[in-house]
Amino acid sequence: MHGTPLQSSEKKLGQLEGVFRDSDAWQSMSPETLVYQVQWHEAIPQGMEGGLFWGTTTIAPGRVGDEYFMTRGHFHSRRDRGEYYCTVQGRGMLLLMDEERVTRAEVMEPGSLHYIPGYIAHRTVNTGETPLVFWACWPSDAGHDYETIAKQGFSARVLDRDGSPAVVPEER
Amino acid sequence: MHGTPLQSSEKKLGQLEGVFRDSDAWQSMSPETLVYQVQWHEAIPQGMEGGLFWGTTTIAPGRVGDEYFMTRGHFHSRRDRGEYYCTVQGRGMLLLMDEERVTRAEVMEPGSLHYIPGYIAHRTVNTGETPLVFWACWPSDAGHDYETIAKQGFSARVLDRDGSPAVVPEER
Repeated sequence: MHGTPLQSSEKKLGQLEGVFRDSDAWQSMSPETLVYQVQWHEAIPQGMEGGLFWGTTTIAPGRVGDEYFMTRGHFHSRRDRGEYYCTVQGRGMLLLMDEERVTRAEVMEPGSLHYIPGYIAHRTVNTGETPLVFWACWPSDAGHDYETIAKQGFSARVLDRDGSPAVVPEER
Repeated sequence: MHGTPLQSSEKKLGQLEGVFRDSDAWQSMSPETLVYQVQWHEAIPQGMEGGLFWGTTTIAPGRVGDEYFMTRGHFHSRRDRGEYYCTVQGRGMLLLMDEERVTRAEVMEPGSLHYIPGYIAHRTVNTGETPLVFWACWPSDAGHDYETIAKQGFSARVLDRDGSPAVVPEER
């Protein structure tokens, strides 16, 4: 990958309004707090069919109230596109929600490999006390639909319950 | 990936007739010698558009004459499909050949990440003295065309020259 341009994106708490359940706790924290960062290679243009991208996501340890730091989560714009995650370090949960809003969770730990089929929204949660780092590989024409999750959220959240992560159905 | 069926394929020397340059050396070796093994997950059916597969390839250390153990190599049946390789352990070379038979090589070492664009044949070579292990992620509708390489080979080979690997143009 020598010479391939490395793209980068980061999300601070201030950019994640409405994502966490406890808005009072969110407002009491510094908006400059870094929650997660993604770096990825684009060896080919976005939207091109047949190619792949490879990225590294790092989610900081932390909580907003009793809710662990996590990504916004998304469907792929092309709904049928899948993705692989491979956990490098740390410990977390992968939330997977289908289009009927049925959510399940997989434990992420170093070496764990996760297939995200098409039509499944995905969000990652750092449930540990160190950064959660994972690799992702996804089709170059998958695209990202963040809007659906921004409006509707996931149907479950990962919350700290007496020091352990629990997957709790969302009350709406 | 718990519960996902794990597929497996292996290639012994006896199955690799015509692949290595030195046919006398090839015939003098046991056909039962394991050259490489691939294990992969098929969370979805082969040929399905939009999905991905993830596999682990292990190439044994060894040579046929002065030519290092390597995979057969292939184009994707759907020529525009790309692939990622990520080296886990060992040391090797990734041979990449375009449809005009121009071949280049990338060094594989632990942590090295390699993007294989569409329309590029790819073959991996173990140039070290320990197993070369790498992960691969490819589209579920890519398919494998081994025939083109079986007939025409690559335009370069990786040979041991005084204990170091050299990429040597093929004489035809």
